Amino acid sequence: MAETVGGAYSKPEIAGEIPLDQVAREPFHRQHVLDLDDFSAGEILRVLDTADIMKEILRRPIKKVPTLRGKTVVTLFYEASTRTRVSFETAAKNLGADTVSVAATTSSVSKGESLVDTLCTLQALGADAVVMRHSYSGAPYLASRIIKGSVINAGDGWHAHPTQGLLDVYTVRNKMGRVSGLKVVILGDVLHSRVARSAIWAMTKLGAEVTVCGPATLLPSWWVQTAAQNGGLVMPGLRLSCDLDRTVEGADVVMALRLQMERMQAGLLPSTREYVRMFQLNSARMSRAKSEALVMHPGPMNEGIEIAPDVAHGDQSVVEEQVSNGVAIRMALLYLLIGPNVNVPVEGERR
Amino acid sequence: MAETVGGAYSKPEIAGEIPLDQVAREPFHRQHVLDLDDFSAGEILRVLDTADIMKEILRRPIKKVPTLRGKTVVTLFYEASTRTRVSFETAAKNLGADTVSVAATTSSVSKGESLVDTLCTLQALGADAVVMRHSYSGAPYLASRIIKGSVINAGDGWHAHPTQGLLDVYTVRNKMGRVSGLKVVILGDVLHSRVARSAIWAMTKLGAEVTVCGPATLLPSWWVQTAAQNGGLVMPGLRLSCDLDRTVEGADVVMALRLQMERMQAGLLPSTREYVRMFQLNSARMSRAKSEALVMHPGPMNEGIEIAPDVAHGDQSVVEEQVSNGVAIRMALLYLLIGPNVNVPVEGERR
Amino acid sequence: MAETVGGAYSKPEIAGEIPLDQVAREPFHRQHVLDLDDFSAGEILRVLDTADIMKEILRRPIKKVPTLRGKTVVTLFYEASTRTRVSFETAAKNLGADTVSVAATTSSVSKGESLVDTLCTLQALGADAVVMRHSYSGAPYLASRIIKGSVINAGDGWHAHPTQGLLDVYTVRNKMGRVSGLKVVILGDVLHSRVARSAIWAMTKLGAEVTVCGPATLLPSWWVQTAAQNGGLVMPGLRLSCDLDRTVEGADVVMALRLQMERMQAGLLPSTREYVRMFQLNSARMSRAKSEALVMHPGPMNEGIEIAPDVAHGDQSVVEEQVSNGVAIRMALLYLLIGPNVNVPVEGERR
Repeated sequence: MAETVGGAYSKPEIAGEIPLDQVAREPFHRQHVLDLDDFSAGEILRVLDTADIMKEILRRPIKKVPTLRGKTVVTLFYEASTRTRVSFETAAKNLGADTVSVAATTSSVSKGESLVDTLCTLQALGADAVVMRHSYSGAPYLASRIIKGSVINAGDGWHAHPTQGLLDVYTVRNKMGRVSGLKVVILGDVLHSRVARSAIWAMTKLGAEVTVCGPATLLPSWWVQTAAQNGGLVMPGLRLSCDLDRTVEGADVVMALRLQMERMQAGLLPSTREYVRMFQLNSARMSRAKSEALVMHPGPMNEGIEIAPDVAHGDQSVVEEQVSNGVAIRMALLYLLIGPNVNVPVEGERR
Repeated sequence: MAETVGGAYSKPEIAGEIPLDQVAREPFHRQHVLDLDDFSAGEILRVLDTADIMKEILRRPIKKVPTLRGKTVVTLFYEASTRTRVSFETAAKNLGADTVSVAATTSSVSKGESLVDTLCTLQALGADAVVMRHSYSGAPYLASRIIKGSVINAGDGWHAHPTQGLLDVYTVRNKMGRVSGLKVVILGDVLHSRVARSAIWAMTKLGAEVTVCGPATLLPSWWVQTAAQNGGLVMPGLRLSCDLDRTVEGADVVMALRLQMERMQAGLLPSTREYVRMFQLNSARMSRAKSEALVMHPGPMNEGIEIAPDVAHGDQSVVEEQVSNGVAIRMALLYLLIGPNVNVPVEGERR
Repeated sequence: MAETVGGAYSKPEIAGEIPLDQVAREPFHRQHVLDLDDFSAGEILRVLDTADIMKEILRRPIKKVPTLRGKTVVTLFYEASTRTRVSFETAAKNLGADTVSVAATTSSVSKGESLVDTLCTLQALGADAVVMRHSYSGAPYLASRIIKGSVINAGDGWHAHPTQGLLDVYTVRNKMGRVSGLKVVILGDVLHSRVARSAIWAMTKLGAEVTVCGPATLLPSWWVQTAAQNGGLVMPGLRLSCDLDRTVEGADVVMALRLQMERMQAGLLPSTREYVRMFQLNSARMSRAKSEALVMHPGPMNEGIEIAPDVAHGDQSVVEEQVSNGVAIRMALLYLLIGPNVNVPVEGERR
């Protein structure tokens, strides 16, 4: 009943085929969430359906349930973050868990305590889940070998940011009713973006057709080479383009990525003005997309650089929904990872 | 039944008149607490009476009630603070709310995330109240346009610190039984003091006669000019003086302000020794006040500079009561702003 | 029935004598825990027995009890720490208390607020317990004169770290069934180690025979002098040695201390290589100890310096148990200090 991603790529929206976002939900047997690369469509849908239940809790006057009472969730952040840390802490507290916050700058990591030692300590202290952000790609994999509870990757280097990818795809499904067959454009510095990588996995797994677009210096070079040899195709479900105006034509979703100002100094970009002219998401460009197309951004936005202020705050922007949906997605994951062993009935199973 | 502040200024303590601190309590229909300048006497009394109820809770063996269960209170501090942040967090937790702490130095504000972006994020994350301290005057007003819940100003630049003003006036009422008609002296660097500004609003609204006293370089220049033209009167309820010894004569309350050491370097003061000689609150000066007069200070104190150690810790000092009352006042405000829609019966209504 | 420490030192393991770790438990009437130097054996056993009860709670699926509901525990850390702060916060939350975290770098202590002022504030804010780490020896004693609740020393300068000493002795008792009569070696920089000082108090009070071993420059000079005059004996229960290989012979417990790299720069050590050769705890040395001997370390470990990696993570290592036991010990202390006035029945009393 479930199709493969390759199958999805071959026009799943054709009548008679079952779109990927209606495949059978799969049970969730994971211990950790480190990346989305090995998630099946059915697992992603299980997370999204659980997030629907969490969203209902968030609408209640008392948006708190005791499901994770007695569980301890530690946020271990080696990079500064307001958005993601507060989102996870709010999610954990909404489910009744206790939270402990460890920041690299104020903890003994600043006096040379190794990552392994810190993780061993958190393990021994009885953390049920460790939510971890680290500037080194792969650090959460190391953590998953030490922590006997669950590790959730909250962003590692340029590698992955799986909860961001899930909240992106959840926001699309919520607004558009489906993901399968949608035309999604991801725009900007894809090379250095863990957000882009995770969004691409989530979107293509559910059958969207993703095109990434940006300066060639800010795209993975093997993508550029593969696309050059295959008429723009990088892999099933993923295309590459350097012409934003043509790419955005008829798009259902356009996601702009944050441009790190360091890229200019590193010589990867000629100038901000050049970038704005070629790749800023502005209203002229959005007018080429479908009229009901969504504007997305993982935040924090550099308004006036990668996105024009009127687009950032316009009617089509779902940037705030992305942030709110992040709480629901993180509640869903914490529930599925460390919650009581109860099967939540979801639509896919009731049939 | 309620008098105007101007009326209060004209000797409200005269027999037959109703003191301003016994006016009818008014319902509390605010969404935010940004400043005290637009609070009526009746609103202030509503807050103080609610704080009385909270103080009773704080005397219980288990000083915790579930009133704000499921609510999230975020403290967003762009300036360091132990006292105010811990006070708000304790207040929120005592009422059963969850708290999330965001400090400028450890969050992504350090990598250039704009204030607006941070506020939009907190809004989208579902904060019920944002308690905010910022070095720019007016920043909480900006916040109040973004946050759909409540914003409480925990100090903005030189502008206002309304919860401090409320706890000051509450401490006076608790110790003296009334505020109306009391002679209050505020001493020191009024120019740079948000604490002084908020205390003056709160005290004069309830009918106290406030005199500020300090070096002319540390007083607002238009106050100095107005006072020079009006025999010391700045506005109804507020006088200005440069002669501390005479001013303190017969005072009911003397509040010393913290002297920032930077003022010396900025050339606003000749020397610490000079300041101490002219304006330190010492026991000789306090002996000119009424025998039961209160010594107040917003803390942290520079003992030996703006206040002598024996006065700071003497029998007349209520500095510690100010801090404890701060918890009750902040519980009261959180209750009135985001609590369940129940009218707490207060004395003024039972009549 | 209880023996003195001196008595314990004179071979308590001889048949017919009652080992010190089976003396009658004593009630716990302390307000503060500042050092272990004035703890009796009976008091220490009361703490360890209470920790046994807490360990049982930690094994439950919902490892949380409401015993300290409505109590506020403040962690006031003037030195960075992950391990100890998270351990105390977890302990407090497991017992249902609220926690507030104050770090020196992010609070107004950074703008010159004095320690006394901060403590007065925490007192006035209603802290039931203040858990305090400070780089000045004795700072918690100052705190105990201000705080009307309880002060727990979480490490002060080179002086004491009593909860670490208690968790060390608790770990030994848990693994070996007793402490009395055991041969314990403490190895490394004893001079600068508050951990060593507290472990020595706890171990000798319960009748262990402790030998410290390290470079003479890293041992207290009066210990070196006293030992030289008394055939290695510093005081009853405590010996000193500079020959690690001989000292470790037949040991039941070997605890390596962290070597601060600053010591090298201060000229107290010739080189890392020299230290490793003479004093590293490696498998060759451990093979001289009893076959079931325990390897301990307070963490964070410098693997390859004071301890070899295979020993640090080998079968005999109880480093992780030390960390987990820390939560149980801190729960026990918080319970005994600020818990409801209930006598927990312990084995010693049931007889």
